[in-house]
Amino acid sequence: MRKVCVVITARASYSRIKGAMQAIKEMPDMQLQLVVAASAMLNRYGEAYKQMQDDGFTIDRMIYSVVEGENPVAMVKTTGLGMIELVTALEDLKPDVVVTIADRYETIATAIAASYSNIPLAHIQGGEVTGNIDEKVRHAITKLADLHLVASEKAAERVIKMGENPDSVFVTGCPSIDLAAKAIMPELDFDPIERYGGSGLKRIKPEDYYIVIQHPVTDERGQSRQQVTETLKAMHELGKPTYWIWPNADSGSDETSKGIRVYREKYKPENIWFFRDIPSRDFLKLLYHSNGIVGNSSVAIRECSFLGVPAINVGSRQSGRDRAENVTDVGYDKDEILKAIEMRKDMPRVQSCLYGDGNAGKRIAEVLRDAELKFSKKLTY
Amino acid sequence: MRKVCVVITARASYSRIKGAMQAIKEMPDMQLQLVVAASAMLNRYGEAYKQMQDDGFTIDRMIYSVVEGENPVAMVKTTGLGMIELVTALEDLKPDVVVTIADRYETIATAIAASYSNIPLAHIQGGEVTGNIDEKVRHAITKLADLHLVASEKAAERVIKMGENPDSVFVTGCPSIDLAAKAIMPELDFDPIERYGGSGLKRIKPEDYYIVIQHPVTDERGQSRQQVTETLKAMHELGKPTYWIWPNADSGSDETSKGIRVYREKYKPENIWFFRDIPSRDFLKLLYHSNGIVGNSSVAIRECSFLGVPAINVGSRQSGRDRAENVTDVGYDKDEILKAIEMRKDMPRVQSCLYGDGNAGKRIAEVLRDAELKFSKKLTY
Amino acid sequence: MRKVCVVITARASYSRIKGAMQAIKEMPDMQLQLVVAASAMLNRYGEAYKQMQDDGFTIDRMIYSVVEGENPVAMVKTTGLGMIELVTALEDLKPDVVVTIADRYETIATAIAASYSNIPLAHIQGGEVTGNIDEKVRHAITKLADLHLVASEKAAERVIKMGENPDSVFVTGCPSIDLAAKAIMPELDFDPIERYGGSGLKRIKPEDYYIVIQHPVTDERGQSRQQVTETLKAMHELGKPTYWIWPNADSGSDETSKGIRVYREKYKPENIWFFRDIPSRDFLKLLYHSNGIVGNSSVAIRECSFLGVPAINVGSRQSGRDRAENVTDVGYDKDEILKAIEMRKDMPRVQSCLYGDGNAGKRIAEVLRDAELKFSKKLTY
Amino acid sequence: MRKVCVVITARASYSRIKGAMQAIKEMPDMQLQLVVAASAMLNRYGEAYKQMQDDGFTIDRMIYSVVEGENPVAMVKTTGLGMIELVTALEDLKPDVVVTIADRYETIATAIAASYSNIPLAHIQGGEVTGNIDEKVRHAITKLADLHLVASEKAAERVIKMGENPDSVFVTGCPSIDLAAKAIMPELDFDPIERYGGSGLKRIKPEDYYIVIQHPVTDERGQSRQQVTETLKAMHELGKPTYWIWPNADSGSDETSKGIRVYREKYKPENIWFFRDIPSRDFLKLLYHSNGIVGNSSVAIRECSFLGVPAINVGSRQSGRDRAENVTDVGYDKDEILKAIEMRKDMPRVQSCLYGDGNAGKRIAEVLRDAELKFSKKLTY
Repeated sequence: MRKVCVVITARASYSRIKGAMQAIKEMPDMQLQLVVAASAMLNRYGEAYKQMQDDGFTIDRMIYSVVEGENPVAMVKTTGLGMIELVTALEDLKPDVVVTIADRYETIATAIAASYSNIPLAHIQGGEVTGNIDEKVRHAITKLADLHLVASEKAAERVIKMGENPDSVFVTGCPSIDLAAKAIMPELDFDPIERYGGSGLKRIKPEDYYIVIQHPVTDERGQSRQQVTETLKAMHELGKPTYWIWPNADSGSDETSKGIRVYREKYKPENIWFFRDIPSRDFLKLLYHSNGIVGNSSVAIRECSFLGVPAINVGSRQSGRDRAENVTDVGYDKDEILKAIEMRKDMPRVQSCLYGDGNAGKRIAEVLRDAELKFSKKLTY
Repeated sequence: MRKVCVVITARASYSRIKGAMQAIKEMPDMQLQLVVAASAMLNRYGEAYKQMQDDGFTIDRMIYSVVEGENPVAMVKTTGLGMIELVTALEDLKPDVVVTIADRYETIATAIAASYSNIPLAHIQGGEVTGNIDEKVRHAITKLADLHLVASEKAAERVIKMGENPDSVFVTGCPSIDLAAKAIMPELDFDPIERYGGSGLKRIKPEDYYIVIQHPVTDERGQSRQQVTETLKAMHELGKPTYWIWPNADSGSDETSKGIRVYREKYKPENIWFFRDIPSRDFLKLLYHSNGIVGNSSVAIRECSFLGVPAINVGSRQSGRDRAENVTDVGYDKDEILKAIEMRKDMPRVQSCLYGDGNAGKRIAEVLRDAELKFSKKLTY
Repeated sequence: MRKVCVVITARASYSRIKGAMQAIKEMPDMQLQLVVAASAMLNRYGEAYKQMQDDGFTIDRMIYSVVEGENPVAMVKTTGLGMIELVTALEDLKPDVVVTIADRYETIATAIAASYSNIPLAHIQGGEVTGNIDEKVRHAITKLADLHLVASEKAAERVIKMGENPDSVFVTGCPSIDLAAKAIMPELDFDPIERYGGSGLKRIKPEDYYIVIQHPVTDERGQSRQQVTETLKAMHELGKPTYWIWPNADSGSDETSKGIRVYREKYKPENIWFFRDIPSRDFLKLLYHSNGIVGNSSVAIRECSFLGVPAINVGSRQSGRDRAENVTDVGYDKDEILKAIEMRKDMPRVQSCLYGDGNAGKRIAEVLRDAELKFSKKLTY
Repeated sequence: MRKVCVVITARASYSRIKGAMQAIKEMPDMQLQLVVAASAMLNRYGEAYKQMQDDGFTIDRMIYSVVEGENPVAMVKTTGLGMIELVTALEDLKPDVVVTIADRYETIATAIAASYSNIPLAHIQGGEVTGNIDEKVRHAITKLADLHLVASEKAAERVIKMGENPDSVFVTGCPSIDLAAKAIMPELDFDPIERYGGSGLKRIKPEDYYIVIQHPVTDERGQSRQQVTETLKAMHELGKPTYWIWPNADSGSDETSKGIRVYREKYKPENIWFFRDIPSRDFLKLLYHSNGIVGNSSVAIRECSFLGVPAINVGSRQSGRDRAENVTDVGYDKDEILKAIEMRKDMPRVQSCLYGDGNAGKRIAEVLRDAELKFSKKLTY
């Protein structure tokens, strides 16, 4: 009986691993352990833990570890505090392998807790390239990890180049694509405002609409407010119905939030409606039926490549990530954004399997079941 | 005025950076900031902070962060607790660059605190290969660091292969060699027992003597006691005067300490004398005039290569590190150890510059003064 | 030169100690040290630290210590994390006496850090009686404190009854009354919306207006939303201009906030305008010229007693606190609230010195300068 | 089914609560939960948790929380770190009542974690008077606690005087007396060195012997080494067989330990044998058959009063505690100690029930089963 402990620290990470968790749960000789921490526990970020419980998962440990401040000091403290409690949880649960997802800053706490405890560490979605603190975190976790479950061939190549043993690298596809695959359906079957509330000046309908998600960029602090204002102006001027999702808890999201609030009070953009959060299943459906997504979320690069949804990617946050045909890159500039939206409007949609074919969850589960588990390694050169 | 903040978490790290610190202190346009944390604050591990004060350095922040337990849980908590307070210190001190040394587990706290705070991070002694949790920690720090000050060409090569920008990698030599260079003198000018006390059954003299340092190996927990017992038997049987330095604070050192205590009480080895700690300057002198060093300390591989002191390296702790001619590798086995000591006895001593030529400190200081400071980077592939 | 270290963890505490801080700053033989932590560092709670800087105080240490969660788990972690860093700050600053204010949950961190470090601890505003976790916290701090600077004779009596040495108890009056005294002026000299923004459906004018502050009650979790809704209904039905201040960061404020948001979106009360925060000086002026205050803030009991402002005190949060003539107690019930407002409308205003005469700050500073400082004590019985 | 969660942070606390734990375990309608933290987890302090497991108790949560430093900074951090993890454990275990024992500095972490979480808190052994930081801690916990299970009538009186509701105060006797009662037997049935090892220069026999335990006194830091040296001189000069138990983990124990080590190496007292720890059952037997106990342990005041063993109490650590006939108080002075030993030698032994009659455990268990559980209270005056 192999015990697999998945540690989830954010809503977005849950959507990436959910498919694998379900597959593990159904395997007869595997035991799924679940630890939830950081923003996944918080109301402000959508209380992802409740969604997990609703999905039928039992949570073994819940850890409140977010230190408030929305600045680097708070990020580091959140990581340190998480580490302190995660290791107690791991000591109790005694898993055979720990799974950590992607590259959010606080996930290095999981990597350290597991690797220092001599528990084999599996890392989902290493080997990618972006432009942010995430870049450092992701590769540092690769160096702490023993198993690498990556989204694409190119990611596998990079992980191996970094000195990891090729036998420890598995191309599984991106698990978030699995969920995207399930969201493809002929028509949108709900009205987002009706179902999820949110706030805005005038109710809008899900027809001929856009979606926006724009996060602050960690190493461009002080500019987030100006950056989000350009996107607000663009969408306001465009005048089409726009569903805007609030940014998550990185350092600086406060500036972004402030930018949104100030713009809203001053210019009263009636075509934009704001949501704290939409659960991923419905969000993907909404995305699939949209005209396109604007901002700097990785969902635009990954899920949208598979769904074929046009993505206007703003600024540096996703720089370096492999792109399919659906992406147009623009600067923090109202006019560039509007021009790209215009250009995309008449292009045909193209779906791509760059980030997976919809079976990543199953493959991840199989690797976690079958791979040899070690916790000691050396550079290959 | 460039502000360089050096974070020291252990006695051994201090000896590696002291030369650079002195050079920085003397540079007109540089300001040295010093943060001392973890075992460097503790009586049990030689209170390194007092030595720094005696050497004329002003300590800007002192942080007690060692969580007791001598197991992986405590290691992780020590790291997390250190991180929480280090980031407050960095926020206060606002350095232009932070320096972290080598690969002890708790040093990743410094790397995270600096990199998440967007402060350029300089890493001393990356790119080496060993066989332990240190291996993971060292390379993870490389991925968090912006400047790499490595000991050898080979280390530089490895760091670049891992995807670091060659412009950010500098071969400075190992700073510990600088101290070693100063310790070379025609005769030993002190009696260690007279100067440093210690304990033993019968006073021994520093003539025709050996030195032993043996640390537990993190991922061989449960075997440390047996491992140290073999070395004890070997030295006891050899019968030559032996100065034995107690192990430091890694997980499991308690087992090693226990092994030593039990052997001592049971077999009463009169030729072995035990020290908690000998300051590095005197220790290097003692080393230089010894017949050789036995155990698994990195000092045997590095400083002794320069000094030409024969090293009987026991077990896996130093595996993968580049070696000069002075090293003989043996297993955890009394007979192997004795045979190697015997063999080395009649071989001529050879000094090597593999790990530096005695000017690393100055070079490190110069790089820290002149290098372009950035806190953002990407994989080169 | 006596060094007095004031630790401030919340906006409200700052207004209580500001007068004393100014007096200390002006004393020739005293040095003021200032440590700011917890919610006093956070944007969400009005960034009190900026106000201190604007007031000309130098902050010696800033500590981010709020763990998010707005539940008891987060409260305890906030306290623990604060403690860990406060003690490092105290060790650095080496004050002769530490000052802690009132009874917020996280202030026990200051009390523990000081008393365990053998630094004499002065406690402002002990000896009062309320109905909440504050009650436990306040008296526990009394037992850790060495000097007691209380607001009233009655409070002094209680502290002495608890076994404290009468020589260590000083009646200084409540320092918040000092600020209140300065706020008395013939006319309101600003428009709060113009100066502080805030949000609401329709701009209101400061004429014939009420003020509301309602915090959640820690041991009535789960009921906060219903409780605040009754007050909202009452003020909505009353129809008079109402300035409503958002609750602070106790466990459960999220429920209260949610209650407010939901009511606002559903019933659109045009006569209510919401502020995140109004700096205390202006807030007291606004209070003085209002028809009265509704809710459960201690300001209604303390400052308003001196100002003679009618207070409709809702629910159990202030139960046990000594009251002057200005207070009417009601339950969580719309009708009770409206009836009390009605009744108070025609009563004459009466000012009381129950909580001080406006010179507490100066008296506190004098006690801190002159009192004998000890850190050891015993029960008097 | 009432769930009682006992939190144990030190070896000594375990012996005080063990009887109650056994009684609870046997009650049909009660569930015992056990959390072990701080020095009770550490090898250096006798790994009390192993003893609990050997005694058949299941440990629900183990928490490593001791921050090293043996100074006040470390004490505060240990408390803060313990708090952070204890509250997570309580949140998981959801007990109906939490039990905290006596007055060690880190136990306030338990009190805060429980009371802030609105879980009723039972405090064992409040209402006593001593001369140390313990004094502050003990009474602060009383103010946080909801149920008071005290050792004597006098303690009950004090707790009530402090403003606690008389209905919440129960005189149960001191649970440590229960164990003492079981240790009374006609002859000592083991040789301590044979059974527990320890170290010394010459093996001694358990005949006509003394016992010593001397802890450092928190607020007399810097004097511990001198203080213990006086006791060492006294016992050395007395020349009788002496079993000496190493001090525990309070701030400053390092000084005391150092004092012992230095004396031992310098003066080689052949009549003194040192133990890290003797399990309480055997220790009490050893105590009962001794000539007397010297030092400043509370065991001398409490258990020895019941056993009638003469106690030479040195210094201020136990000052204020109620004493029976068996105690002679002396200063930190070799001659005073020797004179008191001499005087006691010929006095008859007198047993006292001042601290209980041997049934405290059962009574505590009954109160925890039957008492009304609340988590809200107010001063009675």
